[in-house]
Amino acid sequence: MRLRKVKNALEKIQDYPNIVIPNAKNNRGKWNSIFKNDNPIYLEIGMGKGKFIIEHAKKNPNINYIGLEKEESVLVRALEKLIEEPLENLILLHEDAFELNEIFADGEIKKIFLNFSDPWPKSRHAKRRLTCNNILNNYRRVLEINGSIEMKTDNRKLFEYSILEFINNKLEFEELSLNLHEDKEDIITTEYEDKFISKGNVIYFVEVKNNGK
Amino acid sequence: MRLRKVKNALEKIQDYPNIVIPNAKNNRGKWNSIFKNDNPIYLEIGMGKGKFIIEHAKKNPNINYIGLEKEESVLVRALEKLIEEPLENLILLHEDAFELNEIFADGEIKKIFLNFSDPWPKSRHAKRRLTCNNILNNYRRVLEINGSIEMKTDNRKLFEYSILEFINNKLEFEELSLNLHEDKEDIITTEYEDKFISKGNVIYFVEVKNNGK
Repeated sequence: MRLRKVKNALEKIQDYPNIVIPNAKNNRGKWNSIFKNDNPIYLEIGMGKGKFIIEHAKKNPNINYIGLEKEESVLVRALEKLIEEPLENLILLHEDAFELNEIFADGEIKKIFLNFSDPWPKSRHAKRRLTCNNILNNYRRVLEINGSIEMKTDNRKLFEYSILEFINNKLEFEELSLNLHEDKEDIITTEYEDKFISKGNVIYFVEVKNNGK
Repeated sequence: MRLRKVKNALEKIQDYPNIVIPNAKNNRGKWNSIFKNDNPIYLEIGMGKGKFIIEHAKKNPNINYIGLEKEESVLVRALEKLIEEPLENLILLHEDAFELNEIFADGEIKKIFLNFSDPWPKSRHAKRRLTCNNILNNYRRVLEINGSIEMKTDNRKLFEYSILEFINNKLEFEELSLNLHEDKEDIITTEYEDKFISKGNVIYFVEVKNNGK
C-alpha cells in the first residue's frame, strides 16, 4: 500500500501509552497481566487502520486483541478510533513482525491474523513476505499448541506462495477457500477487503494450525 | 458431464482391440511390451473424447500414453479419432479408475493426468472423487518414485478438496496455479477446457509428486 505521511503521527502514538504500548519487548511473556485477565490473545500482524481488529474486539469481549503495525501513519488511524472509543480488550503495538519472538514468549498467542499482507512480488524480496518459511517458524513458536494462523488476501501469487510455504512448514490445514465471500456470511472485513469486493475481486482464505509437530 | 448414448459404442470398441486393449488386467506389469519400447508411460484418467491425450502423444513421440475412460460413449469418440489417425504411442483402456492397481504394477507409470474430473459435489459421494485419499494411495503405488500427478479443474470446491487430500496424503507439491491460463502459454487443453476458457472461467492447476515417503 502507498502511504500518505501523517504529520506528528509518532508524537501522537507516544501520547497514548495505554493504547499503543511502548517498549513491547519488556512485556514478553506477561501480556495477560497488561489485559488483567487470562483470556486468549489474538494477534493481527499488519493491522493497518484497524477496522478488522476493532470489530473483532467489540464482538468478542472475552478475547484479548493485539494489533501490530510498523507504519506509524496507518497505526495512528487505528489509534484515533480507539481514542474516540476505547476498548479494554485491544491494545496496539508499533513494532516489526520480524521481531515477534522478542515481543512474545513461546505459546503466548492463540491466533494470528494476516490480512492482505504486502505481496512483495519480486522473488528477491520473498524473505520479506509475512508467510516466508523463516517467519512461519517464529509464528509457530509464539502460537500455543493448536493455535492457528488465519490468512486472507486477494493477491493470487502471494496466496499460492503461502500455501506452499505452509505445507513445507508442516502447518496443518484447517480450512481453505478460494472464494471466501461466496462461502461465508457475516465476515469481518478490512478497509482494503471492502474495496476489493466492491470491484468483484476474489478473496482467498486459509487457516492453518500449529499442531506441535 | 451428461452423456449422449452412442449406438453400438461397445461393439465398435471391441472391433479395435489394437487401439482399445481388452482384458487390461492381463497386461499388468507388461505395458511396455505392448508399446514395444521402454519409454515412460503417462496415463490420463477419465480421458473423455481424447483431445488432450492425442495432442500430447503427437507432440511427444518418445513417451507412451494410455487413456483410461469408463464411459464407452465418450471413449468411442477418442477411438474414432485414432482410427482415422493411428498413433503408435497411444492406447486406450475401457476401464474403471478404481481398479488401477489391478491394471498397473507398482511403479509402472511416470505421470497421471486428471483433467476436469467429476466433482461429485455431495459430501456423501466424496469417495467417488478421483482425488479422495483412498484412490490417491492407488496412484502412489502405480507411480514410480518421483512420478507425479497433474490435475486441472475449473471446479473450485473439487480443487480445494483435492489440495487438502494431497496434503493429507503427503504428496509433495511441485506446482500450484490458481489461474493456469494466465500463468502459462501453449497449454494442451481438453474439449471442456476450451469451453470453460471461452466463458472466462479460471482453470486451477496443481502438480504433486510421489516422493516415496
